[in-house]
Order: sequence, then structure tokens, then C-alpha cells
Amino acid sequence: MNDNWDNVLVQMIKSFSLFAVAAVVIGVGTYYYLWRVPDMPKLDFERWWGNGDKPNEDDKTIRAFKIVFNETMIEDLKYRLRNRRPYTQPLEGMQSEYGINTIYLDKILQYWHDKYNFKKRVDLLNRYPHYKTKIQGLDIHFIRVKPESTNKKILPILLMHGWPSSSKEFDKVIPMLTTPRTEYDFVFEVIAVDLPGFGFSEGTNKPGLTPVQIGIIMRNLMKRIGIDKFYIQAGDWGSQAATHMCTIFPDEILGFHSNMPLSSRSISNLKYVIGSMFPSLFVESKHKHRLYPLKDFFLYLVRESGYFHLQATKPDTIGAAVTDTPAGMAAYVFEKIGVCSNKKQLHTQHGGLDNIDIDDLLDTATILWANACITTSMRIYAEAFAWPETYIVHDIPTKVPTAAVNFLHEVIYQPDWILRDKFINLVHSTTLDFGGHFAAMQTPKELVDDVFASVNEFIKFNTKNGKK
Amino acid sequence: MNDNWDNVLVQMIKSFSLFAVAAVVIGVGTYYYLWRVPDMPKLDFERWWGNGDKPNEDDKTIRAFKIVFNETMIEDLKYRLRNRRPYTQPLEGMQSEYGINTIYLDKILQYWHDKYNFKKRVDLLNRYPHYKTKIQGLDIHFIRVKPESTNKKILPILLMHGWPSSSKEFDKVIPMLTTPRTEYDFVFEVIAVDLPGFGFSEGTNKPGLTPVQIGIIMRNLMKRIGIDKFYIQAGDWGSQAATHMCTIFPDEILGFHSNMPLSSRSISNLKYVIGSMFPSLFVESKHKHRLYPLKDFFLYLVRESGYFHLQATKPDTIGAAVTDTPAGMAAYVFEKIGVCSNKKQLHTQHGGLDNIDIDDLLDTATILWANACITTSMRIYAEAFAWPETYIVHDIPTKVPTAAVNFLHEVIYQPDWILRDKFINLVHSTTLDFGGHFAAMQTPKELVDDVFASVNEFIKFNTKNGKK
Repeated sequence: MNDNWDNVLVQMIKSFSLFAVAAVVIGVGTYYYLWRVPDMPKLDFERWWGNGDKPNEDDKTIRAFKIVFNETMIEDLKYRLRNRRPYTQPLEGMQSEYGINTIYLDKILQYWHDKYNFKKRVDLLNRYPHYKTKIQGLDIHFIRVKPESTNKKILPILLMHGWPSSSKEFDKVIPMLTTPRTEYDFVFEVIAVDLPGFGFSEGTNKPGLTPVQIGIIMRNLMKRIGIDKFYIQAGDWGSQAATHMCTIFPDEILGFHSNMPLSSRSISNLKYVIGSMFPSLFVESKHKHRLYPLKDFFLYLVRESGYFHLQATKPDTIGAAVTDTPAGMAAYVFEKIGVCSNKKQLHTQHGGLDNIDIDDLLDTATILWANACITTSMRIYAEAFAWPETYIVHDIPTKVPTAAVNFLHEVIYQPDWILRDKFINLVHSTTLDFGGHFAAMQTPKELVDDVFASVNEFIKFNTKNGKK
Repeated sequence: MNDNWDNVLVQMIKSFSLFAVAAVVIGVGTYYYLWRVPDMPKLDFERWWGNGDKPNEDDKTIRAFKIVFNETMIEDLKYRLRNRRPYTQPLEGMQSEYGINTIYLDKILQYWHDKYNFKKRVDLLNRYPHYKTKIQGLDIHFIRVKPESTNKKILPILLMHGWPSSSKEFDKVIPMLTTPRTEYDFVFEVIAVDLPGFGFSEGTNKPGLTPVQIGIIMRNLMKRIGIDKFYIQAGDWGSQAATHMCTIFPDEILGFHSNMPLSSRSISNLKYVIGSMFPSLFVESKHKHRLYPLKDFFLYLVRESGYFHLQATKPDTIGAAVTDTPAGMAAYVFEKIGVCSNKKQLHTQHGGLDNIDIDDLLDTATILWANACITTSMRIYAEAFAWPETYIVHDIPTKVPTAAVNFLHEVIYQPDWILRDKFINLVHSTTLDFGGHFAAMQTPKELVDDVFASVNEFIKFNTKNGKK
């Protein structure tokens, strides 16, 4: 009997030891597995995205370009706006809880029809020199502005927008970046680009144009215009593509400033969860609420990511759904612009849209409408998830000096200890108690202040490390 | 030293025992917790859904109704179709992988404009007697068809559709249900209803119209037309509302036939996972692939549920987006009709739509368009998740005899051992190797065969149990 009990004990100890060893092995294994750095996938830097096959001779001209809102387009747009059908009213007592408030939407659409000054707005957009050039078969549109004569160092900076924007998003920051400041010995030459399929840049008709591939196109654009090394400022999908550029071309990117920096490394996802157990250890307590409790963050994500889910799986459906309706396209796009401008907008009629100048909002809508590029712009969500290269490149850290500016209402906030998984040299980080996702439109001055301060740090870092 | 080792042993055993006890307690606790049956929430069966406050005097008239597709509507619809803008073409080599194929869509829209015979179709819809009556403030539309004189027992059956349908979905099955069969001593009197906010039934302007509340309205409609006890046939959201009716009014529902039966009890979710470990124990091996491996099922769900996610969170946005575009509304709605008709449609141009008669498809679109009810129809997704009553009522099993018919391409398949969590008396279950989500349109005869066979079982069950 006693012997028997001893046997049971031995068995239990064995089981427990086995369990303990297994737990340690699994724990260490997982940690090691998530920290591993994959090999860079083979990428064709000249991959052809144009119609048909790659021609023998490539068109390398850079053409001056002027934005035109032509009369036919304007008349048709206004006709469609005038003939929109009445909307279903919001439910009693509701503001933006069920989506865009159609009473508020009606006011914006009325303004678009009656007051938005197409002529004046297009002139404003055209105050900068615009260009187009064919990169890997796609006609890419960009703005290039050099500072007035100055004895400061002139640094090239590429500005990359996200969805549903275009280079238009940067029109307020361009003059601020090209104007010298007494406290810095440099000033910027700005290249603001439309991502392929956005704004006035051609979309592809070939599958596979991931943010990785977009990054390659952007780098080749810079080469085309004679710039081999440059800085980048970007948010949203622009920031995703720029992150890949930093990973693939670390010697060409002198510094990366992001207003939506993200480490998508596998280890970072685990850290979210670890961090949620001891938030105070990992996030400054005053910023804790931006990420924790994770339950609130996930609820917000679920509530606000329906459009993301749809665009990542059926971009051609939702694109087709709003192809022939400016009012419908505006409803769909504006709701998201509002939400991303201000997370705390659910119980307001404007849904966050009062953070954006109405003419800026309607510039974006008019550009989307005039170029009929809503589908091509939405496809980026699907492409970003459909091909393994995105995940692989995401999982490789970059040494490019990086700066993060975290505005209050940005969709996703990652504290520095997570960002550093991807951006080893995070040399500048600012967390602000205001602002939102469309920083260049919402808070242009504060964004540019942070760009100047960050590039100053990039220069110090690069000098110390003998880069350029 | 030896003593010390003994102490370590004792500590380890203690830890292990504690762990084992905790595991058992948690396991049993979870199981018990998930099996618990909550109390029925207090529900106001006369809750007012009409404009403003409930009046003292309620309008109880039942009015004959005729569907009209008026010339103004038709001309405007055709004008909008003619003036649709060109679509972005599918990506090279792609069929429906990125959503609806716009080449195929164009063909359907061309047919809608050129060949769909509005006059003939509305006459077909009007071959049945239509009615409207106000229930709890909402004008509810229904079809009521009694069989020709017969010496068989006449049993009332309520037919309830889902999104984006209406009572139109049942136009093929109605004559089959009202025609006596030699092998059965009963035949049906059919009541096919439009859910509130769908088809010709009024939507509410008050928040909170969950499937539970819709179920109450449906039951009150039946009372209004003098039917206190009845059978139900339903799919999709209709099946959800009917499931709640079975739970709330078990003595009034004589039997429930569902072509999308679902147990949403908490225990059922756990069973999905348990079942995935030993699928052969719980699902007939030839049907295993409908649910397992769970990975494939979840991938399918993620790929196809973007619309669900959006409608459950922002119905007013996507509703507004397609309010003034018949082409856009059709693109959005048809993609889903195609997918739900045939899960294996991704690499086809038609995306599953070749399973549905094009005139049936366009009846649905025309009814949605003419009634401008796309937003009110979409709100059911949000309401179903926004209020706790839905979850609570779901978690209460029902004793109403139930029959399940599982068509091959139905979105979600639950084997009987899961269905029985909710439907204790699952008296008939059929699993077919063909068919899809819109059974009444796709495979009307097979659906009706199963209804007859099931009701025969319901009668036996009720007789044995002394019901009615």
C-alpha cells in the first residue's frame, strides 16, 4: 500500500517535471521563434505593373502636369448630387452610433453642390509644380517643391499619404517644410507623391501590388528624379510602404518620420499581450489609455474596422458599389475620415468631421471622384494581406533612424518598447495630447515641428554612424 | 540534503495537486457555466415601434395591397443604370477573388435595363393576395394564400426570409405548399411576410429592433390575422427571429423548420472546438468538411463576412453609400447572394450568381430599390449585436419540435449534436449534397419536400406530447 503510494508520487513528479520542462521549452521556443529574423525575399526591383508585357524601351520622361477639374465632370458630379435620393434618417436619439449621420452628410453634400468652388480649389492645388513619370509601367503623379534660394542645407523629403488621400493631404505642410527656420541649418525639398491607384497616379491591372511593391515603386521614382538618398514622412498606408522601403533600402533612406509607426513583427503582437498584464511597466501611465485595457482597444478596433475587413476581402465589390455615386462614395469615405480624426466622435452628429476643413474634405472627394480611383485605392487592403512577402519584410527589423509622432486620436498607438522591435534606431518619439490620423490636414504645424526636430536627430545619428 | 530533496518533492506534489484540482474546478465550472439557462428577460409584447409615442387607439385594419412598380420609379431607375460610370476591370487573371466581377455585373445591369420586364414581374408578384396591417406601429406587409378546397387538414405556416430578401423569396414555394400531396393528410395555408424594414414592410425609426423584437412583431401579426398556433419555415435572419419566437412563445409555435438552424448557446461555441479535436465522433464523416477543419471554416468566414462586419457596426454608412445608385446597390447585394448560393464560387466570373434565376435576382434588387429600404434592412445586423436580450434569449433552449435542413453551400453548418443544445426536440434533420443559402429560390421543390416530411414529424411529436 505504502509502496503503491510511493509509485503514485513518482508518477506525479514525473508528470509534473515533464509538464514544467515542456512549458519552459514552449516558452523559450515561442520567444525565440517570434524574435527570429527571416531572410529578405527575392524582390524584382523592375517588376512590370503596366498594361500587358514590359516593353523593350522604357519611357523615362518626366512631364509637367496640371490638375484639371473639367466642366463635364463638374456638371455631371453636380447633377448626380442634385439627384441623390433622400436618405434614411438616423434612428431616434442617435448621432453617429450606426454610422454616418445622414442629416450631417446632407449638409456636406449640399455644400459640395452649392458652395465648393471647383475653380478656386483646383487653382490652390495647382499652386505647386506637379509632374508625372512612368515607373515600372505606371504613370506616377507627384509634386516637387524646392525652397527659395537659401544658404541652408537642402534635404530631400518624400511625403507619402494613405487611404483615401492623395498628395493633396500635404498641401498645408509643403510650404512649412520648404521655409527655413532659424533654429535649424537645413530646410526641405519636398516630393509629395500619389501612391499608385490613388489620386492622379495610375493603378495597376495586375494582382500583387502590395505595400512592399509600392515601396519599390516609390524608391524608383526618387531615383528617376535624381535623388538617391532621402528622408520620408508618412502615415497610414504610406507609412506601411515607407517601413518596407526602410527595410529593403536601408542605405538610401536617411531617416523615417511616421505619424502612424507600426511594428508588425510577430514578437510585437506578443508584447501587446504581455504589456496588457503590466501596463505600467511598459507605457507611460498618462498614455496607457491609448492601448490598455486591450478590451477597450479591441472593441474600438472591431467597431471601426468593418470598412477595413470589407476592403481587405472584397475591394472590387465596395469599389463598384460607389463608382457611380459621388454622394455614396462621400458617405462611405467621410465616415472613416471623421472617425480617424477623432476617436471620441460616436455620440456627435459630425462624427469627427468637424476636425477637418470642409474644403479639404471635398478636395479629397473630388479627386477620388474625378479620377474614378476608389476601387484601385481600396485594393491596397487586399494586396497587403494576400501575399506572404508583406509579412516577411515586416518581420525584418530596420536600422534606418526613425521618429514616431503619436497624435492623440491615431487609430493604433504602439509604445516605444514595441516600436523598437522593428525600428532598432528609434531616435525621436513624441506623444501629443491632441490631433488625429490626418495630421498633415488636422495639425500641419505640429507635424512639421516634429519633422524638423526629428530630422535634426537623424542627422546627428547618421553623422555619428558615418552614414552619408 | 536528503531532507531538503524531500521538501522539494513535497512542494512539487503540492503544486501539482493544486494545479490538478484547479484544472478540474475550472473545467467543471466552465462546463456548468456554459450550460446554465438564464432567466427570460422581461419583454414588452406591445412595444411601440412607430413614429412618435404610442397612440391610445390602435389601427387594427387589414388592408388588401397590390405591389406597384410605377413609371416614375422605373424611368428613374433606368436612367441611373444607363448613366452608371464605367467600372474598374477585374485584375488580370482574376474572376471573383477581389469581390464581384465587374464584367459579369455589367451584363446583369444591362439585362436589368434592357430586358427585365417590370410589368410582367410585378404581375407575377401580384398573383398572390397581398395585405398590410399595422403591428406595434409598423405597417407590415404579407402574402396569405389558402389552398383550394380540400378535405385535408389545413395547417398555417409562416414563412420568414432573411437579408437582402423579402416575401418574394418564397414565390416559388407558395403554390407547392398549398397543393395537397397524396402521401400527407394535411396541406398548408401560407403566410409569407416581409420583416420590418424589408421589402414592403415599414422600418422603425427607433433603436432596438432586434431579432427578438422582430419575432414578437411576427407573432402579433399572426394573432392579428386570427392565427394563434402555427408552424414556421425560415432561413437567415428569419430563422434567427423564428428561433426567438420558439423560445418566447413555445406553446404557440407548433413546429419550426429551418434551412439555417443555429444554436448560439455559449455551450455550442465550446462544442465547435471540442468537435474539431475529434470530428469523426461528432459529425458524420461525409459531412465533416462542412465544418472541419475549423481553420478552413474560419478562413471562409473571414473572407466572406466583411459585409456582415460593416453592417453590424456601420449600417447607416453603407446604406447611405448605395441609397442613390441601383448599380452600386446591386453590386453590393449581388456579390453576397452569389457567394451564399455557392461557397465554391471564388474562381468563377459569375461568383455563384448562375445559381439564381436572373429575374429572381432582379426582383429582389427592384424591391429593395423601389422601397429604398437598404438601410433599414441592414440595421438588423447592428441591432442583433447591440442589445443583451438577443444573447440571453439565445441561451435559453426551446422545446418546440424543430427540423433542420442543411443544404450543401449554407454559410454555417451545425451538426445535430450542437443544434440540440438549443433545439431539445430536433425531430427531423436532413443533410443534402446540393443547394445553398437561398433554398426557396434555388431548390424550392426539395425545400418543400422537407417541410412536408418535417411537419409530419411535428404532428406525431405533438400528438405524443399532448400539444394542441
